[in-house]
Amino acid sequence: MSIKTLDTFFKPRGVAIVGARRSLGFGSGIPVFLQKKGWGDRIFLVNPSGGVLHGYEVYVRVQDVPAPVDLAIVIVPSASVPAVMEDIGARGIKNVIIESAGFAETGADGRALQERVRSIAKRHRMRVIGPNCVGVVNTENRFASVELLDESLIPGPLSIIAQSGVFGNILFDHLHERGLFVSKAVTLGNRIDVDESDMLEYLNGDPLTRVIMLYLEGAADGRRLKELLPVVTKNKPVLILKSGRTNEGKRATASHTGSMSGEDAIYNALFAQTGAVRAESLSQLIDLAQVFTTQPLPGGNRLGIITTSGSLGALATDVAVSSGLSVPPLSPATATRAREIAPGWMNVYNPLDLGPSANYAKLLPMLLADPGIDMVLAITVIPYAVVRQFKSTGMKVEDWFGNIASAAAQFPEKPLAVVVFGHHEFVQDIAALSGPSIPVFTEPEAGVRALAALWRYSTARERLYA
Amino acid sequence: MSIKTLDTFFKPRGVAIVGARRSLGFGSGIPVFLQKKGWGDRIFLVNPSGGVLHGYEVYVRVQDVPAPVDLAIVIVPSASVPAVMEDIGARGIKNVIIESAGFAETGADGRALQERVRSIAKRHRMRVIGPNCVGVVNTENRFASVELLDESLIPGPLSIIAQSGVFGNILFDHLHERGLFVSKAVTLGNRIDVDESDMLEYLNGDPLTRVIMLYLEGAADGRRLKELLPVVTKNKPVLILKSGRTNEGKRATASHTGSMSGEDAIYNALFAQTGAVRAESLSQLIDLAQVFTTQPLPGGNRLGIITTSGSLGALATDVAVSSGLSVPPLSPATATRAREIAPGWMNVYNPLDLGPSANYAKLLPMLLADPGIDMVLAITVIPYAVVRQFKSTGMKVEDWFGNIASAAAQFPEKPLAVVVFGHHEFVQDIAALSGPSIPVFTEPEAGVRALAALWRYSTARERLYA
Repeated sequence: MSIKTLDTFFKPRGVAIVGARRSLGFGSGIPVFLQKKGWGDRIFLVNPSGGVLHGYEVYVRVQDVPAPVDLAIVIVPSASVPAVMEDIGARGIKNVIIESAGFAETGADGRALQERVRSIAKRHRMRVIGPNCVGVVNTENRFASVELLDESLIPGPLSIIAQSGVFGNILFDHLHERGLFVSKAVTLGNRIDVDESDMLEYLNGDPLTRVIMLYLEGAADGRRLKELLPVVTKNKPVLILKSGRTNEGKRATASHTGSMSGEDAIYNALFAQTGAVRAESLSQLIDLAQVFTTQPLPGGNRLGIITTSGSLGALATDVAVSSGLSVPPLSPATATRAREIAPGWMNVYNPLDLGPSANYAKLLPMLLADPGIDMVLAITVIPYAVVRQFKSTGMKVEDWFGNIASAAAQFPEKPLAVVVFGHHEFVQDIAALSGPSIPVFTEPEAGVRALAALWRYSTARERLYA
Repeated sequence: MSIKTLDTFFKPRGVAIVGARRSLGFGSGIPVFLQKKGWGDRIFLVNPSGGVLHGYEVYVRVQDVPAPVDLAIVIVPSASVPAVMEDIGARGIKNVIIESAGFAETGADGRALQERVRSIAKRHRMRVIGPNCVGVVNTENRFASVELLDESLIPGPLSIIAQSGVFGNILFDHLHERGLFVSKAVTLGNRIDVDESDMLEYLNGDPLTRVIMLYLEGAADGRRLKELLPVVTKNKPVLILKSGRTNEGKRATASHTGSMSGEDAIYNALFAQTGAVRAESLSQLIDLAQVFTTQPLPGGNRLGIITTSGSLGALATDVAVSSGLSVPPLSPATATRAREIAPGWMNVYNPLDLGPSANYAKLLPMLLADPGIDMVLAITVIPYAVVRQFKSTGMKVEDWFGNIASAAAQFPEKPLAVVVFGHHEFVQDIAALSGPSIPVFTEPEAGVRALAALWRYSTARERLYA
């Protein structure tokens, strides 16, 4: 039942936009945005000044809106929110997104105001997202309570739970540039009702969501999160970026969304026990999303490294071993086959350091095929002067490295990550050669850490099923 | 005297290219490259087959080359290197760069060959860089023993010591794209003679080098490095990326450049004692170079954070405190001035979270001016839909954030780093607004870690001077 009510936030029949206005400012672009996305006949604007806006009649009170409307988006100043909430309740709308800021995050007065809003919502049995947020996104029906770029509305397997509106927004601005596409997203703000556990439960049941990304300042209900996380992670990976690790960071989150962050060690233990994958930084959160949305879970922790740079191979090896992976010798059969085609000066080890040898296209599939290797890191760097030289003879980057995407497709059970560094044109060539299904990193360390996280999740999941 | 001999590698009067040939392959592009860079009348090609190449007479033996030549670049196959070295010695050339691979990194035979070469060099009192490297770069006179892009030859304050040729090369392909320009670079390869300590000493005395970047697999002479590092770091920062941290990584470096990596804990202690700055990854090495080449050393560890995203502010705070910085309250005078212009809902704390308030241009200089703040992280993120909206009214990103470069220029004694994330066009706008003298990061964590490294170096340096 809880899940069904939450579904209305993402799939409303009709939407009242309370506080719609002509002047530019927070939320003022939502009506035109929704109109453009095909919601023109399902949005209803509300503002005490009435009149006509963007071609719509503006209703003075939400009670005046004709049916069917089952979601209200509130963008009025915070002081007006209680009155507006009473109207929404009277109108019988049960789902409300309060985007307005100026509540618990601003101090005692704001906290009192927030409590008033909470009790009004409770009395009317409304489900509320916010305040101090930008609400929801659903790419399936192109519904969003916040203006987004068209590229951000391309459907994908990733769903996002964030506390902060700006954070959610800038993620959307960037993710598509990294080939990451979203199914659903929510920004929770001050969480007077709907919290991260509600959303985790909802997304766990959502067949379009394969991977969940969570930015958390502090759990609204630690006990429930603890119970729920293993249920979800058993089913799909949950990637978490959590702030409030230090006392100063906690103070910062308190003034941001009024969150109590709790002890970081407790969260670390909670995430480790429940199989949630903790990101150490914003960049790593995105790295993890790239690997978890595209790669299979590895059958073991044995990493094979193929590289054109011995230095980057050594750096990757260090990080792999420090992160719980092993970098074992090649299987005898693989080593024999590799030696048959390798030049005399080449060391046939793991990392398989090719140097300037032109056998990458043959050796990458050989490494992927090795039964003693569970996943592969393919480091593909060449000095740009060399790239230019071989391109001048009509040779392509694909002639050097082979078709990386096709090689990977032959081994769908083995995770693969590519690392490239150097001139941006060469980086683009390698990205094109890797295709949308293989994550490309610009340093070996990040690629290895993401593969190691895949392995840790895989073992945690097995433990949950045991 | 040692320094003077090393100088010849970077400023030769004439250069013999031994192994110059028509067929494409390793090193074959060097003559035309040097010709284009203005070295046409100072290069001399040597190959037993003689004839004419690229318009040059090809000398059968290096002894035939007319004076003055004081550097030889060797690109013949490894088996031919001993004979060629005898010729170079007989010709009286005292500086040799052996680029050929196929020595200690390939096993016992290669090691024996390398020892032969070493003893020939010793007998002739030659200084040798390599083998298994790409030699040197000097942007001042546009001399390089490896083909590089024109952009890579723009002079700058950074100098590089790397063991591996490919690694050095790909750094050059990328650094200029990050606004990092180089004075001198060397790749050391298997180090039969010139090692990282020689180069550190040389670069320490080089007035054009302000920051040194070092990629190390293992020290050639640990005792000398230990003695030398504090001498250099007292004078200029040394940024180190070191592999061979784990046993598996050590094995990888052994097969790469024949390096013995030693215990990582010993290196960690060595770097900490001597004020060397250790990078944890390739990306961080570049982050550090950006901050150390552009920012002053901070007078203390007090970080001020100004942000348009509370989430990113909280993440930055956590990393700052974990990295040894403090994020103190604003000075009373600054807080009072900030409150005068801040809207009611805004929290005037540190991090100074502006949310959608349009006071960034006023508050950034205020934060920089705060006597209780030693350095500033400026987080500048806005949803792209908002950027588009305000741009449509004729407003520019500069109207929102102020001229970041000018604000920073008013406080030349305080380090500043900018963080931006989101749509690539907005990221470019902020980078342009920040200008070449302010490092721009795409996540808060990386920016804070780089500032913290600046502070750690600053205290280490004070200790060395005490």
